[in-house]
Amino acid sequence: MKVSFGCELTYRVAAPTVFILNIEAARIPAHAGLADSLRSNPALHFTGYAAPPFDNRYARFLAPPGPLRIGYEGSADLQLRRANPAGIGEVPIAALPLELFSFLQPSRFCEADRLANVAEKQFGSINPGFERVTAICNWICSNIEYKRGASNPQTSAAQTLEQRAGVCRDFAHLGIALCRALNIPARFVSCYALGLAPDDFHAVFEAYLGGTWWLFDPTRQALLDGLIRIGIGRDAAEVSFASMYGAAEPDSMRVFVTAADPAAPSRERTVDAISTG
Amino acid sequence: MKVSFGCELTYRVAAPTVFILNIEAARIPAHAGLADSLRSNPALHFTGYAAPPFDNRYARFLAPPGPLRIGYEGSADLQLRRANPAGIGEVPIAALPLELFSFLQPSRFCEADRLANVAEKQFGSINPGFERVTAICNWICSNIEYKRGASNPQTSAAQTLEQRAGVCRDFAHLGIALCRALNIPARFVSCYALGLAPDDFHAVFEAYLGGTWWLFDPTRQALLDGLIRIGIGRDAAEVSFASMYGAAEPDSMRVFVTAADPAAPSRERTVDAISTG
Amino acid sequence: MKVSFGCELTYRVAAPTVFILNIEAARIPAHAGLADSLRSNPALHFTGYAAPPFDNRYARFLAPPGPLRIGYEGSADLQLRRANPAGIGEVPIAALPLELFSFLQPSRFCEADRLANVAEKQFGSINPGFERVTAICNWICSNIEYKRGASNPQTSAAQTLEQRAGVCRDFAHLGIALCRALNIPARFVSCYALGLAPDDFHAVFEAYLGGTWWLFDPTRQALLDGLIRIGIGRDAAEVSFASMYGAAEPDSMRVFVTAADPAAPSRERTVDAISTG
Amino acid sequence: MKVSFGCELTYRVAAPTVFILNIEAARIPAHAGLADSLRSNPALHFTGYAAPPFDNRYARFLAPPGPLRIGYEGSADLQLRRANPAGIGEVPIAALPLELFSFLQPSRFCEADRLANVAEKQFGSINPGFERVTAICNWICSNIEYKRGASNPQTSAAQTLEQRAGVCRDFAHLGIALCRALNIPARFVSCYALGLAPDDFHAVFEAYLGGTWWLFDPTRQALLDGLIRIGIGRDAAEVSFASMYGAAEPDSMRVFVTAADPAAPSRERTVDAISTG
Repeated sequence: MKVSFGCELTYRVAAPTVFILNIEAARIPAHAGLADSLRSNPALHFTGYAAPPFDNRYARFLAPPGPLRIGYEGSADLQLRRANPAGIGEVPIAALPLELFSFLQPSRFCEADRLANVAEKQFGSINPGFERVTAICNWICSNIEYKRGASNPQTSAAQTLEQRAGVCRDFAHLGIALCRALNIPARFVSCYALGLAPDDFHAVFEAYLGGTWWLFDPTRQALLDGLIRIGIGRDAAEVSFASMYGAAEPDSMRVFVTAADPAAPSRERTVDAISTG
Repeated sequence: MKVSFGCELTYRVAAPTVFILNIEAARIPAHAGLADSLRSNPALHFTGYAAPPFDNRYARFLAPPGPLRIGYEGSADLQLRRANPAGIGEVPIAALPLELFSFLQPSRFCEADRLANVAEKQFGSINPGFERVTAICNWICSNIEYKRGASNPQTSAAQTLEQRAGVCRDFAHLGIALCRALNIPARFVSCYALGLAPDDFHAVFEAYLGGTWWLFDPTRQALLDGLIRIGIGRDAAEVSFASMYGAAEPDSMRVFVTAADPAAPSRERTVDAISTG
Repeated sequence: MKVSFGCELTYRVAAPTVFILNIEAARIPAHAGLADSLRSNPALHFTGYAAPPFDNRYARFLAPPGPLRIGYEGSADLQLRRANPAGIGEVPIAALPLELFSFLQPSRFCEADRLANVAEKQFGSINPGFERVTAICNWICSNIEYKRGASNPQTSAAQTLEQRAGVCRDFAHLGIALCRALNIPARFVSCYALGLAPDDFHAVFEAYLGGTWWLFDPTRQALLDGLIRIGIGRDAAEVSFASMYGAAEPDSMRVFVTAADPAAPSRERTVDAISTG
Repeated sequence: MKVSFGCELTYRVAAPTVFILNIEAARIPAHAGLADSLRSNPALHFTGYAAPPFDNRYARFLAPPGPLRIGYEGSADLQLRRANPAGIGEVPIAALPLELFSFLQPSRFCEADRLANVAEKQFGSINPGFERVTAICNWICSNIEYKRGASNPQTSAAQTLEQRAGVCRDFAHLGIALCRALNIPARFVSCYALGLAPDDFHAVFEAYLGGTWWLFDPTRQALLDGLIRIGIGRDAAEVSFASMYGAAEPDSMRVFVTAADPAAPSRERTVDAISTG
């Protein structure tokens, strides 16, 4: 499926400010034929960096005082992996690749350690594997209210569980924390997403099951097979869309994602397991 | 300086348990001629993994029920880099290597975001660079009581600041959080350390200043030029000495570190800047 | 039912220490014929105070350095009010006596404000009244593990909900917070309790329903019709058994409660609504 | 000094809503000749309650859907007690009236227990008494930024200490928590205040020293001898200006306070100890 995506961000810069953006689509095989461009007005020099191991693309630049406009546009042929979720199990700790252990650890916004008992009591007896992570997402979708303004950039999974409200980032953090608490590696994914209304940046998560990282969206708002991955991180701290060091204020933001073939995706929500890997 | 070090850990294993240990000294140039061995009783098969980018050495094994003894012994010729701290400055954000940005982010136990105002008000006007990080360490040493039992494995920097008490791990977390809040990259270092009484595992931190990672120990308990690095992480979550998945209880722990040349280190505390890098 | 009760507390006092005890049974009509005595060894002068509006009995004394033994013994004929819980409803805010409004407010250990959404989502659609408070207690009993050492004197209801473990005090705090979040006045009750094994001080709570304060014990450990009330407070902060100002350490504690008539209480748990009021 | 004061509050009521207001000046001797009136438009029936032991005046009414306007106006001749702060000491625990002990306990927004070590390390060695409480207020005024929007109704003293920013309510909570942590009884005071710009409700605190409750304002914004007391509570939870049960939104708020004699108060800030008691 051919997808076009991008964003336009404007800022009011009061003093020279270093920006670090993570808004470019990842250069991964799932994004076949990825073509994109990042521009600013005024035209500034960008330093790019594809951070291993996920090749998140960071762009840094120094903005002078005044209005600033960032434009990003891209297109790619989305080639996702699909599978039947039935039979996708958990990988026992004894067999888990050791490089994945950091995705079992608690992180700033995913306090898996604090939620260990909640996870065990609520999901400990559910069949391990895809079914259990689906149960976690279902629970989140039913029990956490999607509510703009209910959270802030310091809100963590434990707080979201208490407040019972949040946005996509909070939903993903809670899903990740609960998975890790059950010894399922999980990580944060920032993305462009088909199906959101209105268009916006989106956040979902991946859980490592049956030897593959599978996508999960506890908000149930986007099309799981219509996600263009931007960054992967332990949590949102590592894949912030825009970090600013100086004195600048966001002014406006516009995100757009469109399927080139209007018939696809059919607005039917897939029940397949989906992976970008 | 030739240093011998190691530990002996015993456990009571109630059911088959996966252990992941991070107690082996890092294979870095600073540890010249590193020779070591890890053994268990009963003898078990270890899977080793040197995790990039820091080559933390993890050893995984499956322990059967019963008593378990882990023994680790090593020796190395410690070759540290020394410098005059005067004139070691901070690296401006615009010039910071982009791969270091994750060490500016908040992590589970180092909530730099929550401590931003405290850091700014307390240390914002101090001369940037080595002097400022030293001021942070001095403040921690004077204002946080070193007290066993004051914290637990879930204690974070923000809590340590509130409780005004903790152990080496807490001191390091607080130092890291305050540095990051001031845009100084900082990371956690677990180690064997000369000078502790009694011998124990130790935790310090590194701050990135003047293009190098420098060691800091806000507890002022160990000799900064007598540290054998085990692991590096964003915080303690990534370099836990022993993670257990199953049913096992720690029984006893003994750590030992000795300088082969008894005259060295002179027990004079160095005022040099020290780096393992 | 005639009940005997009391406690023996010993301390090691290192320096002159002011003690404030709240271990004496309340002088209320439900404790008919209450006869009791409080003694110390060494013999010290007590200042007593029956604090309005609940007449919690506080005893203050200054203990010199050395060992200290506190003994309290009492007996009373327990005269409780019983009712059929069916049909005991909630009092609408518009009709609630204004002097009860402070029992709707959050307190140190009962953060009703933070748990408002949890309470609403979990219990908002249950029939108001005794049935709803019973549902809260059932949920707590099923989902919170009774576990000594899981909490400490600073643990609050929000933390208990997160940790899913605690002791009687934590169970009561969580019950109170959830009730208040649903606009049901609720308060903390410290007591001697028949049915505990082993004997210990106990904590339950009261909810104001149908114009009366009714007892609830989410631990399901004591006999609801075998409670000798000591203190009433917004939460445990107000009815601490022993507050010490100085330098003293608790040494041992023994609590005893016995029904004079061994046939009563039948060990059958009552399903009546019970009130001391 | 003759003072006029009052407020006008408007709401949009969406469904029948119970309001409980605590905006009327307390009927205390310090408010000599207090004359006031509370009205609503539409005209509603108020139920009044002067809550012991402080006689906070609560007014309850049921508002129908539609716009609602509350008007309160009063005047009084402010008769405050003044004293030389030198020599006002702390009352030892052994001599403290037992009815004041609840003002040593932690409350929802004043976690004195959590701040015990901070208080001891920061203020433990300062001369006890008025001087120490003044030092606490000076520290708060210098280290906490007065910033609208920095806090919300759930913000507590421990969070304010961490965030280093807040409004008058947060300043008072932090002052109270630190006093209680040092065994100085302290309580929250809501009031009308001369000297604020712009006029607004204000919050200060009282500490019990030398046998009297003395006023302290860590914001240093109002005139300490120009405060008209509304309510006294353990913290803000007990003296909320307006509690609403139903569906209503605040629309506008106007507060006014004027000294009838324009020459008084001289805008000189008093250095006397001031008490309403």
